[in-house]
Amino acid sequence: MGRTMRAYRIPEWQHPAEVVEVPVPTPGPGQAVVKVSGCGLCHSDFTMLDMPAETGRAWGWSMPFTLGHETAGRIAELGPGVTGFALGDPVALVSPSSCGTCSFCVGGLDGNCPHAPAGRGFGRDGGLAEYVLVDDPRALLPLHGLDPRTAGPLTDAGATSYHAVRRALPRIRPGGTAVVIGAGGLGAFAVQYLHLLTGARVVAVDTDEARLKVARELGADATLVGTSDQTSAEIRALTDGYGADAVLDFVGVDATIAAGTAAVRPAGAYGLIGAAMGRLQAPWYGGLPRDGEVFTFQGSSIADVREVLTLAESGRIRNNVDEFPFADIGKAYQALHDGTLHGRAVVTFAD
Amino acid sequence: MGRTMRAYRIPEWQHPAEVVEVPVPTPGPGQAVVKVSGCGLCHSDFTMLDMPAETGRAWGWSMPFTLGHETAGRIAELGPGVTGFALGDPVALVSPSSCGTCSFCVGGLDGNCPHAPAGRGFGRDGGLAEYVLVDDPRALLPLHGLDPRTAGPLTDAGATSYHAVRRALPRIRPGGTAVVIGAGGLGAFAVQYLHLLTGARVVAVDTDEARLKVARELGADATLVGTSDQTSAEIRALTDGYGADAVLDFVGVDATIAAGTAAVRPAGAYGLIGAAMGRLQAPWYGGLPRDGEVFTFQGSSIADVREVLTLAESGRIRNNVDEFPFADIGKAYQALHDGTLHGRAVVTFAD
Amino acid sequence: MGRTMRAYRIPEWQHPAEVVEVPVPTPGPGQAVVKVSGCGLCHSDFTMLDMPAETGRAWGWSMPFTLGHETAGRIAELGPGVTGFALGDPVALVSPSSCGTCSFCVGGLDGNCPHAPAGRGFGRDGGLAEYVLVDDPRALLPLHGLDPRTAGPLTDAGATSYHAVRRALPRIRPGGTAVVIGAGGLGAFAVQYLHLLTGARVVAVDTDEARLKVARELGADATLVGTSDQTSAEIRALTDGYGADAVLDFVGVDATIAAGTAAVRPAGAYGLIGAAMGRLQAPWYGGLPRDGEVFTFQGSSIADVREVLTLAESGRIRNNVDEFPFADIGKAYQALHDGTLHGRAVVTFAD
Amino acid sequence: MGRTMRAYRIPEWQHPAEVVEVPVPTPGPGQAVVKVSGCGLCHSDFTMLDMPAETGRAWGWSMPFTLGHETAGRIAELGPGVTGFALGDPVALVSPSSCGTCSFCVGGLDGNCPHAPAGRGFGRDGGLAEYVLVDDPRALLPLHGLDPRTAGPLTDAGATSYHAVRRALPRIRPGGTAVVIGAGGLGAFAVQYLHLLTGARVVAVDTDEARLKVARELGADATLVGTSDQTSAEIRALTDGYGADAVLDFVGVDATIAAGTAAVRPAGAYGLIGAAMGRLQAPWYGGLPRDGEVFTFQGSSIADVREVLTLAESGRIRNNVDEFPFADIGKAYQALHDGTLHGRAVVTFAD
Repeated sequence: MGRTMRAYRIPEWQHPAEVVEVPVPTPGPGQAVVKVSGCGLCHSDFTMLDMPAETGRAWGWSMPFTLGHETAGRIAELGPGVTGFALGDPVALVSPSSCGTCSFCVGGLDGNCPHAPAGRGFGRDGGLAEYVLVDDPRALLPLHGLDPRTAGPLTDAGATSYHAVRRALPRIRPGGTAVVIGAGGLGAFAVQYLHLLTGARVVAVDTDEARLKVARELGADATLVGTSDQTSAEIRALTDGYGADAVLDFVGVDATIAAGTAAVRPAGAYGLIGAAMGRLQAPWYGGLPRDGEVFTFQGSSIADVREVLTLAESGRIRNNVDEFPFADIGKAYQALHDGTLHGRAVVTFAD
Repeated sequence: MGRTMRAYRIPEWQHPAEVVEVPVPTPGPGQAVVKVSGCGLCHSDFTMLDMPAETGRAWGWSMPFTLGHETAGRIAELGPGVTGFALGDPVALVSPSSCGTCSFCVGGLDGNCPHAPAGRGFGRDGGLAEYVLVDDPRALLPLHGLDPRTAGPLTDAGATSYHAVRRALPRIRPGGTAVVIGAGGLGAFAVQYLHLLTGARVVAVDTDEARLKVARELGADATLVGTSDQTSAEIRALTDGYGADAVLDFVGVDATIAAGTAAVRPAGAYGLIGAAMGRLQAPWYGGLPRDGEVFTFQGSSIADVREVLTLAESGRIRNNVDEFPFADIGKAYQALHDGTLHGRAVVTFAD
Repeated sequence: MGRTMRAYRIPEWQHPAEVVEVPVPTPGPGQAVVKVSGCGLCHSDFTMLDMPAETGRAWGWSMPFTLGHETAGRIAELGPGVTGFALGDPVALVSPSSCGTCSFCVGGLDGNCPHAPAGRGFGRDGGLAEYVLVDDPRALLPLHGLDPRTAGPLTDAGATSYHAVRRALPRIRPGGTAVVIGAGGLGAFAVQYLHLLTGARVVAVDTDEARLKVARELGADATLVGTSDQTSAEIRALTDGYGADAVLDFVGVDATIAAGTAAVRPAGAYGLIGAAMGRLQAPWYGGLPRDGEVFTFQGSSIADVREVLTLAESGRIRNNVDEFPFADIGKAYQALHDGTLHGRAVVTFAD
Repeated sequence: MGRTMRAYRIPEWQHPAEVVEVPVPTPGPGQAVVKVSGCGLCHSDFTMLDMPAETGRAWGWSMPFTLGHETAGRIAELGPGVTGFALGDPVALVSPSSCGTCSFCVGGLDGNCPHAPAGRGFGRDGGLAEYVLVDDPRALLPLHGLDPRTAGPLTDAGATSYHAVRRALPRIRPGGTAVVIGAGGLGAFAVQYLHLLTGARVVAVDTDEARLKVARELGADATLVGTSDQTSAEIRALTDGYGADAVLDFVGVDATIAAGTAAVRPAGAYGLIGAAMGRLQAPWYGGLPRDGEVFTFQGSSIADVREVLTLAESGRIRNNVDEFPFADIGKAYQALHDGTLHGRAVVTFAD
């Protein structure tokens, strides 16, 4: 009879998550079990509670599963054939799955792998438990100096935002302008990357003045409150009338899509990361940035996560978190829901 | 009193064009006058006849102006300071204007220059006249073996299509799939460029079977008739289910935008060139190609035009034209309007 | 007591290879055994016979090992956890090793992985045996229509050449010029890729007129016999005096390095693939192509191999081979040594 | 009879420069005359004094000419057809010439234009005079807040260094390492750009500890004194043994070329900017960075200069200069020669 542990699970489709006692996983060949130190919470967790069975199954998800896709911890047990790690080593985990062998994966586009939609914490067991199974050595990223209690959000909030910035980088000129719409968790990371990796002026746009204050501390050169009919004109006024090199939209409602696409200079970029399901209420010809690039996605590649960890390890980016012990997981989700957090919520486990 | 010539002009806003007698232009410093050998007709000429004055003026257009933006001919007179050409040299002309000095122009993005919206044949005098003034030496492109009677369409239909293909090239893998929606004038060029510059399978989509037959002759590996709810599924069926590396849409109605964006693989490209003013009737998040690239534009850069001419000179692309003498310009536009042309309509002048 | 098979092995450092009877390998978890259908021979095999122990050990090689790094065959046995293949499925094998998890590998640069220098057929057992062990699912590439008896050279000669062309592609303009020095096995592939993937004129340079004849059949637009002090001038004469967009040097002696670098236009590329250990006898400042790119390497990435197979499957490239049964392996190497082959030598096994 | 001015000229091939009285230039159509506020001195000025006539003539140079290729000043007179400037407007000047119309120029590669080797201050009259003629509107770059007395070095020392960094940027990973060999005038700019535009650790290498101190103030994270047989090993030790993403060598002797190329990781970049005429004393195969990029050049494009000015205007880079009045030009060159400057020497003129 095996050991058990606490886990925060969705028991079945469209049911609330709950703390349950489940078996501690055992690693097979090529696998590892990690003792979780901390795991971040994400708005998308709420969406998963409401996921219809047919949608989830179409994506390869199965029930029940443990939530949590921003996980870091320490190596607890190694299966046969996993080398390069010792017990106790601190690691962060890549959450999205990918096959590792298809043309997307071997080309560095594992974030687009069509063979593995379910990920750690979305469709199969994630990090909101004392232990978590890792079945792909590519997903084990060694930490060099970062605390595994708080490193988890770097792998998701940090890496998704990084992927967006990396997509837009070739179009952002030194001395140009880059705009971040929505300066919350992901957007705050984007402000930092843009400040660090470009010589462009960074403009943050948000309805919340407290967030804009943080954005300025993190490197925003200018801020705009709210998004209105005037936002694109305000951005153009900041850019000699030509528009911004890039706009990254972490909100994604109709109004931000309209303002963001209209604010981009010719040959610039508009990236949609926010999942608010907005659309462009205008013809595309003449409506999209002229000769520019429009892109959207969610997630990141393993290479993205590795680079984000390296940036954090060298002290170049800040990862603001609010810590909650696992016993207070309900309070943590409530704070996330109510918008009362100052950083990313991280649920921690005793060593 | 100077010499006069025949020109096909729009006399004032929202009036029909007409053949009029006007003065032959004289070149100033840095300018040249070209005797036109042939000039192509374009669907956009019809649009110009209906242009409201306020729109035209906002773009820097003025009335009257001579139509024709696909021009080639021979050097007739050189102003002071223009070197490198002799009288009689055959040249093709770049039609869009650009300032030559701004950051877009010096960076090779003259097609996006914000300082010169009016172009030769759209807003100022174009090539449907016996002589045309060229005020920018960058616009004079020497012809090495091409007939100036028929080379004009390469500078616009050919170059616009080339620009689209060049934008999409980095995402088209050898062994992958590229789709051209709308296999008419511009699309037929795109089929050729894709066949020539990629190792991908080229799929042409059109409602007209005669055009698809031509597309196959020009290098299309597969063809699909019409665009329906099933088009994206048909394209996916041709690509192991993953979708096309790139879709170039030379139509641009709602249906082709829907089919085209849905047919693109993750990290692929959808380019809209057709000006039919369609829109995407779906949320962008989940609706655009995942982590892909969406772009739209009209026109091309000078570098594009130069490369298209070089490809034609080396015999690698075919430029199908239907020739009409200037006296039959009305018939030429009628044939364009009626869709009875086999190639691009070109109006020619006696030497 | 297990089954045995014939294998062509180097028994110890700096000894001739020989046919020996060795055990048939057995797949462990995540591994497969492939029955070899055919395996190509490579000039580098000769070099391996002379490899000093200390060099080989520094690269992680161990003795004895079976030669052969251009292998294709059929799945004979699958270890636990290997999915997506059935017994008898035809596959080509990636020969270079790579760890699959480092930042190079997850970024699509597995050809530069610093963690796995020994490869299949160089430092560990390769494909010149009836069966070969594959310990990495990424190395198993399904064949869709290609004959596994002859597909092997595509994975090495074909892919190395492809990698070189892919590196140079961004600098090769439609209508420009690309030069291949050395039109033998690898160079003949390069001529094909350049013809297929660019709109540039392809120039082949070789001392052997028979090879130049083949190069013309494969798509070379012009040929030059030999490499002399005049070669770069001859290439410049073909390119209006500016030089070639790219020169790929599959020889790599002092003379070809001198001629090749001198023949490149500003901002063009010179790629060295030939391992003849030449050097540039001139200062680098003023001696390398101005603002151009110089690169050298051997090998390819898994993505390269996949794309080459796809091109061959679609019939776009030709893979010329001379077949020898395994019993005649000595004759095959002799013909390779004597330069009497018409294609790549492939040693085949009965089904 | 026209006005005269003082100018610092080379009177004929291989003669010392001297202050002479010469006519103030007059602008023709498309030209401007700029009253010089300040002009930087460059080591290459010394080389020009020794230039053999045949070399100079081959480059299109003619004697006599006024030295000075780092010029800024104010618009003094505008020829017909030059728009967008008013008298007194502060401008910096692009010094290299380029034709503006060839395929290099229209593609943004004007730094490689083969049609105009002589530049302002090298082969034709430069900025070490009270007035200077500008015959290309692309060369007039408006200053927004920078002092024209000191902005000159940004156009050459600043822009050459920027071009090198821009070439290497795609290979420098956030969290990686970039090395600058030679932390003097150009190298000090490179340290700043790398600090500003990458998330990489910047390592400066120099024999002069005072320069390394400045480099640390400008953003270098680590420094190495001198270049020896151990330098590449020391750099590898800083990078987990893999090597640097990029090495930019502003010295260019045999020792720095050897150390620099050996210190680059696979797929990294080595850029040679220093004109010390060193060479690599080793075979290229195995000697160049594996699958990496080696490049060399001098100069920059107009786009480079524009971006450097924008960075300086926004306060993101520092331009250290030592000012000398024109009357002390001899002392200024002496200080440059003796290595006693703290910044770039700039010769200034009274308003």
